[in-house]
Amino acid sequence: MGDIGRTMERIITLTTDFGLKDPYQGAMKGAVLSINPKAKLIDITHLVSPENILEGALILLDAYEFFPEGAIHVGVVDPGVGGARKPVLIETKRHFFIGPDNGLFSLIAEREEVRRVVHLTNQKFFRKDISATFHGRDIFGPVAAHLSLGVDPALFGEEIKSLQSTEMPQPEKESGQIVGEVIYVDSFGNLLTNIKGSDISPSDGNIEVSIKGVTLKGIRNTYSSAEKGAVIALISSSKHLEIAVNSGMASKIIGAEVGERVLVKVSR
Amino acid sequence: MGDIGRTMERIITLTTDFGLKDPYQGAMKGAVLSINPKAKLIDITHLVSPENILEGALILLDAYEFFPEGAIHVGVVDPGVGGARKPVLIETKRHFFIGPDNGLFSLIAEREEVRRVVHLTNQKFFRKDISATFHGRDIFGPVAAHLSLGVDPALFGEEIKSLQSTEMPQPEKESGQIVGEVIYVDSFGNLLTNIKGSDISPSDGNIEVSIKGVTLKGIRNTYSSAEKGAVIALISSSKHLEIAVNSGMASKIIGAEVGERVLVKVSR
Amino acid sequence: MGDIGRTMERIITLTTDFGLKDPYQGAMKGAVLSINPKAKLIDITHLVSPENILEGALILLDAYEFFPEGAIHVGVVDPGVGGARKPVLIETKRHFFIGPDNGLFSLIAEREEVRRVVHLTNQKFFRKDISATFHGRDIFGPVAAHLSLGVDPALFGEEIKSLQSTEMPQPEKESGQIVGEVIYVDSFGNLLTNIKGSDISPSDGNIEVSIKGVTLKGIRNTYSSAEKGAVIALISSSKHLEIAVNSGMASKIIGAEVGERVLVKVSR
Repeated sequence: MGDIGRTMERIITLTTDFGLKDPYQGAMKGAVLSINPKAKLIDITHLVSPENILEGALILLDAYEFFPEGAIHVGVVDPGVGGARKPVLIETKRHFFIGPDNGLFSLIAEREEVRRVVHLTNQKFFRKDISATFHGRDIFGPVAAHLSLGVDPALFGEEIKSLQSTEMPQPEKESGQIVGEVIYVDSFGNLLTNIKGSDISPSDGNIEVSIKGVTLKGIRNTYSSAEKGAVIALISSSKHLEIAVNSGMASKIIGAEVGERVLVKVSR
Repeated sequence: MGDIGRTMERIITLTTDFGLKDPYQGAMKGAVLSINPKAKLIDITHLVSPENILEGALILLDAYEFFPEGAIHVGVVDPGVGGARKPVLIETKRHFFIGPDNGLFSLIAEREEVRRVVHLTNQKFFRKDISATFHGRDIFGPVAAHLSLGVDPALFGEEIKSLQSTEMPQPEKESGQIVGEVIYVDSFGNLLTNIKGSDISPSDGNIEVSIKGVTLKGIRNTYSSAEKGAVIALISSSKHLEIAVNSGMASKIIGAEVGERVLVKVSR
Repeated sequence: MGDIGRTMERIITLTTDFGLKDPYQGAMKGAVLSINPKAKLIDITHLVSPENILEGALILLDAYEFFPEGAIHVGVVDPGVGGARKPVLIETKRHFFIGPDNGLFSLIAEREEVRRVVHLTNQKFFRKDISATFHGRDIFGPVAAHLSLGVDPALFGEEIKSLQSTEMPQPEKESGQIVGEVIYVDSFGNLLTNIKGSDISPSDGNIEVSIKGVTLKGIRNTYSSAEKGAVIALISSSKHLEIAVNSGMASKIIGAEVGERVLVKVSR
């Protein structure tokens, strides 16, 4: 961990389904700053669809890696708050993740080298008055704040060996074709799929992508490389197959949502 | 006031109805940072319903107390901007509040020990060119910035003795029952009421909560303690009676909005 | 440039159409902080309507000037990302602007003294792995971060002499009257026009403003100076003619959108 990771001004990112109107995200930030007033709080989003763990996991997955070494990522999409799911701290090679063990961090754990997972049980690092319904404010925020001040992760609780998994749908690969699906629709209406860019070869002109009866030939490099209103396939900034419309909302024009089947044929 | 409260890096929170698209909240932040570039600006919300003072008061009420000593809270829900309502600074034991005297801070003033209220009249601490329609940028933000630099509150204007009140509906208590109402609906569809948790005894199994023809027996501890889709009563993280649905939107399922009557019967 | 402008804690504002749910604005902030972890990131907005360059230009125009000297403003509304439009850095007397050269900054360039425009070509200051669809994260954010650390603007690329223009509709002035239009509708439903306050004389009682068959006599100072529900004309906080409704949404009550014609008659 570099010098930056050691200072009080540590970066703490927040990814929640708290919304931006209610007092919840503000109260959580207050709880963090009451412990470490110099923490640098950065919102990834508070607009995860309520209780949609997979969506929260996907948003965090496409944002966390761009933050510097030592960053602490708090994720709270927590339908089981106050129940049996464990509050956890996950330490990877470069970052820390804090939140409920309900699958929110499992996609990251698959990608990163996990060094340890700590079950957060030491109430010394929680707010004194813990509610049963708001652990973001009462447990996860305070633990992140104490961690940002240099508290040893081992002091927060017992190490555990496994994490709950998110049910992330996997594409199926058969001879010459891949069957995947739309896993996220962004605010531009772009359809992000679970098919990795590395599984197809963009330079190969003989790729056909099909969705809802529309067949697209070839992979484009940019939105603006097609005429306005054209449906195109390209590789997203997160390196997955994406279906988009130049200057339009692919989700509306194609009429597709999360779960829509996407077929890729590669003829060599 | 501790050392933190004295540094230039003072926390200034913002609670407004400015929205997140328009240039207003950005312009206000710029005005603050032009005076104190080290101020630590934290958004509580900019999504108060336009000109809804009670809603702004309730959101701020459930967020401010979690911030550290010395925090400066700017609240701007200000339908009377440029008119007769007074711009004020309120000093409590731990915090400062700055905004229009229109009831936005009256719930806090009832709860906290108010040390002084200052009518902001000293134009030395305003922007030079004051608009009639945007005092967040031209008066409240700049005053907060000067306060964060250590300016004595007495220099901002004359002390005054009273504040305007918000019309906060109060529950009625009769023999064995409480009649309250829904005062806030959050983004999860949870119905927050004006009935305090301390007025009912969650450990007492003989509590009945009624709303719109639905009667709930007992107070739950967590959302997930009921089956999915069940309507439940519990004590909110702000310690009020809340009606919720496990994995659902109570507001939609019950069909209730702000103002809906809630009846609590306690049989001992 | 003052001392503030020279420190690592430089202010970097963000104005984009990325939305607040998707990982994009978070990823861009991460990319900035990976280069300068002390940068002070301030959101102006991420809710510009997708690919609406004029709207983004107008929001930034009404916010940037309130920030202190040395502030770096990143604007990303970039339908042509990865295509022919140039990534640029614009240095004015007080500020810096970074983003695509597609008209997003042209209204500012008309108002400010532009000292130089640099075509961003030096890949040394970009992310190593540049996507074709997300230059906010891969070019604009990183360049802003390097600039905030004191890199000489000349090092980012070649100086160029002209900028693309936004098609900003201009009002027409004829004998005794001005024909303008609504250019922005804010979240309060206020109708902002392209007619400058300086072109009409608010103190002159003989001004008539007409929009969609409604004729308003005189210019008001404040929203609350009219009865509730009344349609009024006033000078906005950005010093343009604005049509509003006291305690109401002018856009809904009048039924007007961006592009609606506004006529001002001044009889002296």
